[in-house]
Amino acid sequence: MSILEKYRSTYVPELPYIFREFGARVGIIEDDATDTQDLEDLIRTSFTHTVNNPRVSFRKNNAPASKRLTVGVIFSGGQASGGHNVIAGLFDGLKSLNVENRLLGFRNGPDGLLSNDNFEITKEILTEYRNTGGFDLIGSGRTKLESHEQFDRVEASCRASGINAIVVIGGDDSNTNAGVLAEYFLAKNAGIQVVGCPKTIDGDLKNEWIEISFGFDTASKVFSGLIGNLCRDALSAKKYWHFVKLMGRSASHVTLECALQTHANISLISEEVSDKKQTLEEIVRYVSDIVAKRAANGMNYGIALIPEGLIEFIPEMKTLIAELNDLLAVNSELSDVLAAARTESDVTSTGLTAESAAAYFALPPSIRMQLVLDRDPHGNVQVSKIETENLLIQKVQEQLMRMEASGTYCGKFSGQNHFYGYEGRCAAPSNFDATYCYVLGFTGATLIGGGLTAYIASARNLSASVKDWEPLGIPIPSLMNVERRHGKNKPVIRKALVELDGAPFEYFAARRDRWAMEDHYCSPGGIQYFGNKEISDQTTITLGLENGCVIE
Amino acid sequence: MSILEKYRSTYVPELPYIFREFGARVGIIEDDATDTQDLEDLIRTSFTHTVNNPRVSFRKNNAPASKRLTVGVIFSGGQASGGHNVIAGLFDGLKSLNVENRLLGFRNGPDGLLSNDNFEITKEILTEYRNTGGFDLIGSGRTKLESHEQFDRVEASCRASGINAIVVIGGDDSNTNAGVLAEYFLAKNAGIQVVGCPKTIDGDLKNEWIEISFGFDTASKVFSGLIGNLCRDALSAKKYWHFVKLMGRSASHVTLECALQTHANISLISEEVSDKKQTLEEIVRYVSDIVAKRAANGMNYGIALIPEGLIEFIPEMKTLIAELNDLLAVNSELSDVLAAARTESDVTSTGLTAESAAAYFALPPSIRMQLVLDRDPHGNVQVSKIETENLLIQKVQEQLMRMEASGTYCGKFSGQNHFYGYEGRCAAPSNFDATYCYVLGFTGATLIGGGLTAYIASARNLSASVKDWEPLGIPIPSLMNVERRHGKNKPVIRKALVELDGAPFEYFAARRDRWAMEDHYCSPGGIQYFGNKEISDQTTITLGLENGCVIE
Repeated sequence: MSILEKYRSTYVPELPYIFREFGARVGIIEDDATDTQDLEDLIRTSFTHTVNNPRVSFRKNNAPASKRLTVGVIFSGGQASGGHNVIAGLFDGLKSLNVENRLLGFRNGPDGLLSNDNFEITKEILTEYRNTGGFDLIGSGRTKLESHEQFDRVEASCRASGINAIVVIGGDDSNTNAGVLAEYFLAKNAGIQVVGCPKTIDGDLKNEWIEISFGFDTASKVFSGLIGNLCRDALSAKKYWHFVKLMGRSASHVTLECALQTHANISLISEEVSDKKQTLEEIVRYVSDIVAKRAANGMNYGIALIPEGLIEFIPEMKTLIAELNDLLAVNSELSDVLAAARTESDVTSTGLTAESAAAYFALPPSIRMQLVLDRDPHGNVQVSKIETENLLIQKVQEQLMRMEASGTYCGKFSGQNHFYGYEGRCAAPSNFDATYCYVLGFTGATLIGGGLTAYIASARNLSASVKDWEPLGIPIPSLMNVERRHGKNKPVIRKALVELDGAPFEYFAARRDRWAMEDHYCSPGGIQYFGNKEISDQTTITLGLENGCVIE
Repeated sequence: MSILEKYRSTYVPELPYIFREFGARVGIIEDDATDTQDLEDLIRTSFTHTVNNPRVSFRKNNAPASKRLTVGVIFSGGQASGGHNVIAGLFDGLKSLNVENRLLGFRNGPDGLLSNDNFEITKEILTEYRNTGGFDLIGSGRTKLESHEQFDRVEASCRASGINAIVVIGGDDSNTNAGVLAEYFLAKNAGIQVVGCPKTIDGDLKNEWIEISFGFDTASKVFSGLIGNLCRDALSAKKYWHFVKLMGRSASHVTLECALQTHANISLISEEVSDKKQTLEEIVRYVSDIVAKRAANGMNYGIALIPEGLIEFIPEMKTLIAELNDLLAVNSELSDVLAAARTESDVTSTGLTAESAAAYFALPPSIRMQLVLDRDPHGNVQVSKIETENLLIQKVQEQLMRMEASGTYCGKFSGQNHFYGYEGRCAAPSNFDATYCYVLGFTGATLIGGGLTAYIASARNLSASVKDWEPLGIPIPSLMNVERRHGKNKPVIRKALVELDGAPFEYFAARRDRWAMEDHYCSPGGIQYFGNKEISDQTTITLGLENGCVIE
């Protein structure tokens, strides 16, 4: 245990008012029935047992101890700070329902649930994990629980271990599958509840009822701290352009939050690129123009933020990647042909369209190799391994050379590439995430105590002080839409992309031209766990703006 | 200003006891004359006016106000956290000597001194820079002040601005040149003092009299925080090997400190590689064996730390780089020939030796391209741009495939590369660096007030509480040795490499095998500026071990 962890272990997250007196022994209030009219037919027919569940909130009620429960918990998918506190809140909540309740942790994610690999999480074990980062108490995994055969194995594990309820701590897909599993268990009258918990540093599991997913606050603070340091460095050395790629594959929330925190000169937002159908060339020109204008003012330095998934949102790149995936899935040897291709006709001979061949050749050779040679076991291009930050540095450099030749640029350009991702997933959770996660876990226990299934634990009013947070249970089907997956329509929880008419983006869009040309850098520093609450307890600017708070 | 910076601006660094009553108005104590017997002749003949200066310390003495002084200050070289506090300490120290003293900041490093580009640093301007990271108050630069022609321009600038003394905040080379400039000014009776201040995140400007250079504490804490997060992530996901390259070109102090802080599984130390004359192949085998042994225990994950300059310490690579530098300086077109080379004879035809041709072909193609195509304006290989972390990932992967074929490895290896450097140079200084820098600046003012020149400001006893720190002035020539530079012998300040018989390395060496195989990860978290002093005020483990403190 580090010294920080030693001191953090004594941090006691607050609980909302509703849980303060009798813990999770509260009354369940069925709020207005969720409006299922807008839900697509496939959702209604897929979730006949759970689609009409109402949202629930809670009222103080010193209910008698619940019957004795045994609950299983898994992490599913990538790490996010605060996971251990979800487990701590769940544990404390369950104990407040009945001191004899037990919590079993399944090892390494869904696999542990399938193979019934679990151990009892005790107060003693938990002590050294409270308020720590990481998922290492029980581990995580990426196996998807989707098939009936898997569901039956999960049921068998639960029977073998006497489990009454499962808590799935995961992102949109994992919570979708938790909903499917809950429905399946109801249909076959298995008597096992399933409750979900919204986790993802990407921030794309949110909606009217879930204000934020846990881990987003901590990760965006870790990244913003580093970017703020780079801003100071750029301003001091005055000779580097730092291109920073930020984790967050499908949505640009992390990049947007970091932009709001640091006032970087350039921040690309994938959703805008997609909306405006910007080509790679247009993006390169946008960046190069800012570099050139700053150079004209004697400022040969700057900071550019790039969302990890950008390349997938550029129309011609999206098409190219889709074509490559189709092509290489069938004939993997074509990757070598493509790697060696020297002309566009070499490329079209493999079956790629002329448009995609042109898009392919617009990329620097090193990026082309990443596209065709680094593929996952299913033959898919590994988008997360494409060094988009280097791609942009190289393309901007080429564009600047053209501009120099035509007399529209005079300056020096030296690009430095960075990628921040893994280092933000397992930091010790910020005070916000430590508390939010604890409340989510506690709410999960409350939902289980109330006999509910197919619910996600949530809490609203998060911009207020913790005592006024409003814990909730949200029926999973109510969060779904229908998407095309592997050639089939599937009900899945709707992913929250950055809304271009939302308050955070509008705040950014109104300031970005000024941030591009003047240096309004802000260096928020690393996460502070102690000291004045103004420093240690504030959550993200994104959440503040979404909740109507006035920033600055 | 960020919220953190707002709160940090009120932090008041403590001063050692000696400065607490009368500020910089203290008496100078000439300590035992520095022992010049061991100094090489070239140093004695090069520094006839300053080589016999004694080390000095201070005694309380309410001396009258000094004559009115105007002092100039520059940053020289790369950023290091705390630079602004050196200026703050210098300012406050000068004002304590005489409230009419003035401090001029020269813009953008040595260039500002050459062109007399300066402005007066006032109390008001300083207010928003106290305890902040970065050098942006006055900027920095890498121009070397070496020639008599430059020295005369510096003198002219000083005359024009009425400057009595210059403070150079820089690394070993900048302080060397400060010493040369001081000697030159004495020889021509210019009446301008020169005082240096030990700055570098690399930590290689230290010796018997300078316990640590400023910036090292903050940078190694930023990096250790991130590495600690990766440790948690590796332990949670259990499927990645993170290879982390760390800034610190000539010495591995940063990597060693990060190893001591985080207990990473593998930490390569350049000085040991050089001492043992380890080949790239041997290093790759050392890493691969640990990967394989962990895999045999079901641990397909880990953390490896790699010093930035490693490749220069591997004998055959050092030779290859030296040959390439010589070759390409004369005939730059050979870089294209080398890039296109397919056989060793293609390579030897350029003039490289057979040994270097073999070393060249042992490298993956992408690294070969970085060696021959990325060169600085002098034609030199840009060692800092070589992705040594990727080189090792690729070579380890190849070695593991061979081991798999021979049945000595069974596992999965997925490497993730990271480079931490720029983000550690400009973080808000840790409490240690904020205080140490302030004391260094204050000591600089004291030396100037005492009429001294060719001195470096220092403070010893840094493992004690601040009141017991011992400020000192160290004559610059006493720190020198003679090195070969550009084909000529030159007296320069001796660079402090990691000592293989020093306490920090021995502590590491005694534990590394255990850290390699078991998971003793420690996650120190980001820098804490507030809260319990045990968290916020501790300095590096390296310094603690060097000062004989008991760790753990």
